[in-house]
Amino acid sequence: MNEELIKIGKQAKAASYKMAQLDTVSKNQILNQFADELVNHIAEVLTANQKDLANAVDMPAKFTDRLKLTDQRIKDMAEGLRQVAALADPIGNIDKGWTNEAGLLIEQKRVPLGVIAMIFEARPNVTVDASALTFKSGNVVILRGGKEAFNSNLALAEVLRGVLRDSNLDENMIQILHDTSHETADELMHLNDYVDVLIPRGGAGLIQAVLKNSTVPVIETGAGNCHIYVDKDAELQMAVDIVVNAKVQRPSVCNAAEKLLIHQDVAEKMLPTIAKALQDHGVELRGDEQSRKIVPSMKAATDVDWSTEYNDLIMAVKVVADEDAAIDHINHYSTGHSEVIISDNYQSGQKFLDRIDSACVYVNASTRFTDGFQFGFGAEIGISTQKLHARGPMGLNELTTTKYVIRGNGQVRK
Amino acid sequence: MNEELIKIGKQAKAASYKMAQLDTVSKNQILNQFADELVNHIAEVLTANQKDLANAVDMPAKFTDRLKLTDQRIKDMAEGLRQVAALADPIGNIDKGWTNEAGLLIEQKRVPLGVIAMIFEARPNVTVDASALTFKSGNVVILRGGKEAFNSNLALAEVLRGVLRDSNLDENMIQILHDTSHETADELMHLNDYVDVLIPRGGAGLIQAVLKNSTVPVIETGAGNCHIYVDKDAELQMAVDIVVNAKVQRPSVCNAAEKLLIHQDVAEKMLPTIAKALQDHGVELRGDEQSRKIVPSMKAATDVDWSTEYNDLIMAVKVVADEDAAIDHINHYSTGHSEVIISDNYQSGQKFLDRIDSACVYVNASTRFTDGFQFGFGAEIGISTQKLHARGPMGLNELTTTKYVIRGNGQVRK
Repeated sequence: MNEELIKIGKQAKAASYKMAQLDTVSKNQILNQFADELVNHIAEVLTANQKDLANAVDMPAKFTDRLKLTDQRIKDMAEGLRQVAALADPIGNIDKGWTNEAGLLIEQKRVPLGVIAMIFEARPNVTVDASALTFKSGNVVILRGGKEAFNSNLALAEVLRGVLRDSNLDENMIQILHDTSHETADELMHLNDYVDVLIPRGGAGLIQAVLKNSTVPVIETGAGNCHIYVDKDAELQMAVDIVVNAKVQRPSVCNAAEKLLIHQDVAEKMLPTIAKALQDHGVELRGDEQSRKIVPSMKAATDVDWSTEYNDLIMAVKVVADEDAAIDHINHYSTGHSEVIISDNYQSGQKFLDRIDSACVYVNASTRFTDGFQFGFGAEIGISTQKLHARGPMGLNELTTTKYVIRGNGQVRK
Repeated sequence: MNEELIKIGKQAKAASYKMAQLDTVSKNQILNQFADELVNHIAEVLTANQKDLANAVDMPAKFTDRLKLTDQRIKDMAEGLRQVAALADPIGNIDKGWTNEAGLLIEQKRVPLGVIAMIFEARPNVTVDASALTFKSGNVVILRGGKEAFNSNLALAEVLRGVLRDSNLDENMIQILHDTSHETADELMHLNDYVDVLIPRGGAGLIQAVLKNSTVPVIETGAGNCHIYVDKDAELQMAVDIVVNAKVQRPSVCNAAEKLLIHQDVAEKMLPTIAKALQDHGVELRGDEQSRKIVPSMKAATDVDWSTEYNDLIMAVKVVADEDAAIDHINHYSTGHSEVIISDNYQSGQKFLDRIDSACVYVNASTRFTDGFQFGFGAEIGISTQKLHARGPMGLNELTTTKYVIRGNGQVRK
């Protein structure tokens, strides 16, 4: 294995023990200094970003928009750092505590994970965002950004590392890989001796590649094939408002709705109105046979549609026989992110909440609320669609683990 | 991929939705029926076990002892089932609940993981034990035991499946693989569409193989290279009692102590007494240079010793300069299971609790308390030494996940 990477791993592990001992006041001071120094170094960061943009002249506008930094975007990053400084610190909380039969006081204490590696793509803001969240939660970070944003990422990380040095802290609390090759990313996924957790942030391709290859435990931030089921007891206007909001407010994100299921008893009455509202917002609809009889302007949906996350102004529509059929369809095709029932019927709502196997299950609200900020966490690492460790929106708490701290006075096991 | 395995996966997934809806009273009734029927079928199970034992005539006694069932061992399994029936049911608990700024009521509710696969070796009792714990926690299970115990495992599983059929429940809530090949075990590790979590139960070789190969998320039950550090302010008699208990009470298990570190200021005074007590219990000691000057009867420890889990009556001994050296040594060589400081000094104890990065950290008690039953959980899946999901002894709660259940009245995101 790459000796440089092992060196980085060892440095991270060593720094993690110092990091875990930093108190909340010190961490917050540093986070605010990160913010101050980012603003003081806008010119250097923009110069570095210009290099990346110059290398990206042939890339599509969508790509360069994510890559491009401006005075304002850097100030926004600084503001983000100050917000993280203002959040409650999860470290040191006692989740549970009890005395066992032998008289041992057992406490389950919240502690940092240790060394977190982040693999991400061409958004330089992740450098600052990930550093802020890992630092606040007492973790050290190894950043591996996409090569397209290398100069920007390096300039941003150097500002943060400069603050650490000036504060007589170990600059290796935040490290960035200078080698952005796929081979080194792959080796990072097998650096089990030094990396406690790996978090990929980016598209489905990146996340699947990491899940397949990594022997380091992965926190999966997930894909969202989110469903809205309009029940026979739905209010039409509420259905229109929620479906439109969930589909069109920000179609590129994982908590946007992708599928509309509607009870056959109300499909004729409600579907034309809902479909028109969506089409008026530029949504392309793809329907099953029954829904196309009601709204002939829809394209025909194929089998692939039911499992596709469009991340675009497209929605597939299906008429279902009843709520059970809706639940079975969702549990079969969903990625387990967020699902909604629109219904004024108590029993239908309760059944949906009980039986849908997804991270977030709603009655009468938009899927767009599946978000760390909307949940009130004040931060968001991502949305977990896996069942281990964390499920749903992840805040600072999800970047921590626990250890049992046990106090005795000489107890031995009988 | 193996069509039979895919069929088993699909059956498990379908059964998991029914399982998740079973209420606590029904689950407890079934668990007690499992116990009754096991006792009613002792003869058949023993006959099956005889076949396995006949095939194992060339295996060492240690192996056949684990494999062998008796009338009493089956009654003990039945008693274990009744104990699991008596435990509190974690499913349906609301861990947290709050109303967000938009007025949504958000509750974090405890739900089953879904489909759990267990890969284990030649202990037939795991068939019953794993079925009991997964059933109580609302999960369905796919069991893959070692081929040496195949007939016993099958007979035990068939008793449980018979109870499910007689109760008009889906017998596929408990399934056992008839194909015990390594190829099929490997495919099970990649059955991500149907298996939510994989738990290997057995030796370090099995666990490492699963961790390396599995794309299904794994709950790691861990190895224990556990340390006891005797501080300069230790009470000698307490040190002797704890070290002897932790090393000799049951040396083959993961919470037995493997290493003894002692502060140089008290090594000459205390080490001879502690070493003699261990040697009187038949413990082979392997010391570093300094400790061998004090107790010359020790063998010389080599570098390999510091990272070895003996699971035997062997202990390595090292004299350390101070507590910091002890902490650094432990954080470097430990498997992160359980570590103890013996000290009457408040600051030394606190520093050890704060700075040791292991699942369980003790002041003045034996490592042998790291155990689900000793912790008061009433059950134990294993001891997790990983940092995601669960860390330390795992009870029923660790076989569950959560989902967010969200109630609105038409909210859309602004």
